[in-house]
Amino acid sequence: MTDLLHDRSAWELTNCSVANALDVVGNRVSMLIVREAFLGTTRFDDFATRVGVSESSAAKRLAELTSAGILERRPYREPGQRERHEYALTRMGSELRVVLTALRDWGDRWASGSAGPPFHAVHRACGEAVHAEIRCRSGHLVPLGGTVLLPGPSRDTRGAT
Amino acid sequence: MTDLLHDRSAWELTNCSVANALDVVGNRVSMLIVREAFLGTTRFDDFATRVGVSESSAAKRLAELTSAGILERRPYREPGQRERHEYALTRMGSELRVVLTALRDWGDRWASGSAGPPFHAVHRACGEAVHAEIRCRSGHLVPLGGTVLLPGPSRDTRGAT
Repeated sequence: MTDLLHDRSAWELTNCSVANALDVVGNRVSMLIVREAFLGTTRFDDFATRVGVSESSAAKRLAELTSAGILERRPYREPGQRERHEYALTRMGSELRVVLTALRDWGDRWASGSAGPPFHAVHRACGEAVHAEIRCRSGHLVPLGGTVLLPGPSRDTRGAT
Repeated sequence: MTDLLHDRSAWELTNCSVANALDVVGNRVSMLIVREAFLGTTRFDDFATRVGVSESSAAKRLAELTSAGILERRPYREPGQRERHEYALTRMGSELRVVLTALRDWGDRWASGSAGPPFHAVHRACGEAVHAEIRCRSGHLVPLGGTVLLPGPSRDTRGAT
């Protein structure tokens, strides 16, 4: 196997999936809006209040997330009110659950301060704590250093050995 | 069990671990610098080049990541040169591996375009593809909707039912 990790200077990374993901969700407010969507928030005012940002910032990020396909807008109308929209995660958005869980785990462990985290996530079926972890398709836990990087379909081969 | 997800309007989220994590790594350049550290990059010039940012941007983010405890600076000196520093992930930094793996998975799936991802990560021991997933401490895979949020040590109880 040609492990790309063996010599980082021998290859250029283009079309990086981490960078591509961060182009969409690589800012704090967008990720916190996605967090709120997972926590059940659907309405514009609630996103702004609960994320703690201005209405203009919330509007900008909600529009970006909708345009990217992470949220979808649905019309609703309360009695006597004009039609408004609420926001829900698409399948693309709901798959960010692993990213948010990993961020929460890391924040619980390294950035929650002496007060500890505000909540614990547990498995509904058995009550045990929930976390994100790295496994291979055979089900093995993959430790640090246990991963090999192989060239994929879009790897730029300029300068590769 | 009091599942906080049951009524998002009944509680305020303070000291959120996701937000706390994003205070440290919630911008694109910082996360790509951490990606590079995992890929073996250690030197200032290489971080700037491989992330594709100006030296001043790289310097600012490397200083922030070092100050936060994610990277550590180590002195080195090449023959005939002045002493310089290289950067390595601390344990705190290396635990971001799950976040990066989750971002890469998501980017592979939703944001890599028709060209496909530039590389595949496989388990060194068995050759199978590596990914991030959500499990509980008993080892069960936790599906969407399979998580319950319980109040933790620092939850703000204002307005809670």
